Amino acid sequence: MIAVTELIESIKPEVIQVFGNPEGRFIKHLQPVESVDEDTLDWITRLKTNKQFVAEQSRAKVILCDETVAYTEGIVAQDKVLIQVYNPKLALALIADAYFEKKPQQGIHPTASVHPEAEIPSTVSIGANCAIGRCVIGEWTSILPNVTIYDGVSIGRRSVIQAGAVIGTDGLGCERRDDGTLVKFPHLGGVEIGDDVEIGANGMIARGSLSNTIIGNGCKINGNCVIAHNCILGKNVWISVSTTIAGSTKIGENATIFSQVVIREQRTIGNGATIGMGSVVTKDIPAGETWFGSPARKIEK
Amino acid sequence: MIAVTELIESIKPEVIQVFGNPEGRFIKHLQPVESVDEDTLDWITRLKTNKQFVAEQSRAKVILCDETVAYTEGIVAQDKVLIQVYNPKLALALIADAYFEKKPQQGIHPTASVHPEAEIPSTVSIGANCAIGRCVIGEWTSILPNVTIYDGVSIGRRSVIQAGAVIGTDGLGCERRDDGTLVKFPHLGGVEIGDDVEIGANGMIARGSLSNTIIGNGCKINGNCVIAHNCILGKNVWISVSTTIAGSTKIGENATIFSQVVIREQRTIGNGATIGMGSVVTKDIPAGETWFGSPARKIEK
Amino acid sequence: MIAVTELIESIKPEVIQVFGNPEGRFIKHLQPVESVDEDTLDWITRLKTNKQFVAEQSRAKVILCDETVAYTEGIVAQDKVLIQVYNPKLALALIADAYFEKKPQQGIHPTASVHPEAEIPSTVSIGANCAIGRCVIGEWTSILPNVTIYDGVSIGRRSVIQAGAVIGTDGLGCERRDDGTLVKFPHLGGVEIGDDVEIGANGMIARGSLSNTIIGNGCKINGNCVIAHNCILGKNVWISVSTTIAGSTKIGENATIFSQVVIREQRTIGNGATIGMGSVVTKDIPAGETWFGSPARKIEK
Repeated sequence: MIAVTELIESIKPEVIQVFGNPEGRFIKHLQPVESVDEDTLDWITRLKTNKQFVAEQSRAKVILCDETVAYTEGIVAQDKVLIQVYNPKLALALIADAYFEKKPQQGIHPTASVHPEAEIPSTVSIGANCAIGRCVIGEWTSILPNVTIYDGVSIGRRSVIQAGAVIGTDGLGCERRDDGTLVKFPHLGGVEIGDDVEIGANGMIARGSLSNTIIGNGCKINGNCVIAHNCILGKNVWISVSTTIAGSTKIGENATIFSQVVIREQRTIGNGATIGMGSVVTKDIPAGETWFGSPARKIEK
Repeated sequence: MIAVTELIESIKPEVIQVFGNPEGRFIKHLQPVESVDEDTLDWITRLKTNKQFVAEQSRAKVILCDETVAYTEGIVAQDKVLIQVYNPKLALALIADAYFEKKPQQGIHPTASVHPEAEIPSTVSIGANCAIGRCVIGEWTSILPNVTIYDGVSIGRRSVIQAGAVIGTDGLGCERRDDGTLVKFPHLGGVEIGDDVEIGANGMIARGSLSNTIIGNGCKINGNCVIAHNCILGKNVWISVSTTIAGSTKIGENATIFSQVVIREQRTIGNGATIGMGSVVTKDIPAGETWFGSPARKIEK
Repeated sequence: MIAVTELIESIKPEVIQVFGNPEGRFIKHLQPVESVDEDTLDWITRLKTNKQFVAEQSRAKVILCDETVAYTEGIVAQDKVLIQVYNPKLALALIADAYFEKKPQQGIHPTASVHPEAEIPSTVSIGANCAIGRCVIGEWTSILPNVTIYDGVSIGRRSVIQAGAVIGTDGLGCERRDDGTLVKFPHLGGVEIGDDVEIGANGMIARGSLSNTIIGNGCKINGNCVIAHNCILGKNVWISVSTTIAGSTKIGENATIFSQVVIREQRTIGNGATIGMGSVVTKDIPAGETWFGSPARKIEK
């Protein structure tokens, strides 16, 4: 049971106004729409068309909503608490993170294999059957099971590496000899991952060739993505599942890249750019633009 | 050595008619076309153009074929047994499964790490170096090596999870704040996988946000696929390798989805729909239709 | 410290001419361009437009370059050694491999699980938490951590399997019955991987149905690729990240396939063909041609 007053306090900068009396009220859980009950913290996204109706009909007694939902006679009669916030979805995410998400257990699982010179603070979680090379990991970072981290990787604080990810593997850039044989280009660089980064399940971040591959603070890279050698991602880049970024490409901060995109090597994607699902990006993309298609072209919003 | 009479009995509903005397006859193995010998159970797919010729020329003495292959004088003279079936490829698959496929060993491999409250019947196989959370697994299901299953997953009976797959990981849906920072949306739901499902190697099934991600009975999802949070797959969906289905999409039963397709979030794919290789699906697809391309469009067969 | 005379000797067939006196000179490391110092072996790719300028300005004393870079008065005055080679990038790769790449430690990591009948010479490296079935591995091959190898796989000499790869898994080709249920086609074949092959992280090579899947000598297959059942790759095929090759496709020797390509089942790709990034290949591609797009079409260079 979580006190509604405490909950409001925890998201204070997001709150516009509270209607009804939160004192002595509690919520118990978050629920999908079909299972909302009296103990649920319900929420109404800003994008819904029938927000007032939802607020009136919800079985929940405490509701996150935006400023367009009115505290009507009907809602008063139901003794509901309306918490008006700037972004109900964001507020819900913050509350879920603070009160409901289970954090992995700190410490190194006995089945994990860890290089004796790896630097791992006691607040770090290393899951079952991980293989951790000579790397540096920051405070409060979680490595889920079956992850492989090669030598020469550094990861910041409060980051999360989901199960099965591989960090610091060689890329396979090659030179072809006249007889057709392939000679692999050197991979002597490392990987630097910032603070508050998340790398999804079965993802792969390759080490740099001579310098490092860099993932900026706050990036969230979904599962099954590939970030090739020497890519540099600015802070707060969001990448959906199954996207591939070829070698030496730079992604500006706050870029948003949807699922199963592929970006050519040595491209530059500007700050705040958006790339649609399934795009094949062969060119540089200027800051703030939205591109889509195969090959990708600028689209006007 | 397998008695041909026993073999015919095992696929009885598929058999149209048997020519020649199967009594006292045996087969030893299945072989690729270039290695067929007298001990092979040979088969002739319905799609071949020269079926009669193949039946006459095969070195095998026992042949699965359809009703268009005749029991000629020449075949009689070679003392061959013809087993006419509705679908020779299906009949072969049933026989291979019954007599030739090696099943993983039951029990939990000593190197696997299993949550003490996981519910795992003794008929289940858990492979080497798996990491198994608090989950429920049905009778006769096989988990191959290096699989990770998070807490909150249920898997039905006779299902197979191939090596390296990750079931129940967080998706990384995020809300972006005005300053660009990303806040991860909650992932408190689970994953429900039905009976007779197969998940391919290095695949990823994300947990739901508030409700569950659901994979219906009999689905076969090939390797390297991603099924994102809150997807719901009806029964008997077949998905080829490297396909990605974004969040909250519904796939109707008996749908057929080829390799490296990506489907946008919150779409609905109708029962029995077919999606061609490499398609980028941005719209809903009605039942029974075939779509292809980037972006995908309906194609007339 | 590496003697420059020894280094030149090691790449002798690549050397056109050496200017300056390499006797008694040493290099210490390779460095990214921004960190080049007096101890660096610097290199100038043939593709650069200002090669002479770079050679004059480099802080390095020993430089790999092509025959168009002149041994000028200025370079003499700086006491530099110019090593003219046919392909500076190739020469650098050969030197990196010989002197700078760290090889995985030989032997079987104690956390790996290995089938008692697997044939593994003492020069092989098996990483932490691998699961190795009944397979045959050649001399000097390295298997990185968390790799799964199924029964029935053979791997040649000096090959490398990067972390998280799965070799020999079942494909999931199925026959659909009239009631919609899916029956998996048999996977009784194996996988044959040649000498000097590299398979990237989290890649997947499926076993053959009745015969084997074959990866020829010298192939380099980057991370997150899928090679489906019964594919046959000739020697020295290079495949970039996240590419998928569906079942029974043949790839000719020296083919070059870029990132996130998908190739339909049962296609034939000719020797030396090139396929551009993100292509959806539905047709056969003749030898030596370059194709690109969705669906892929021939492009004139």
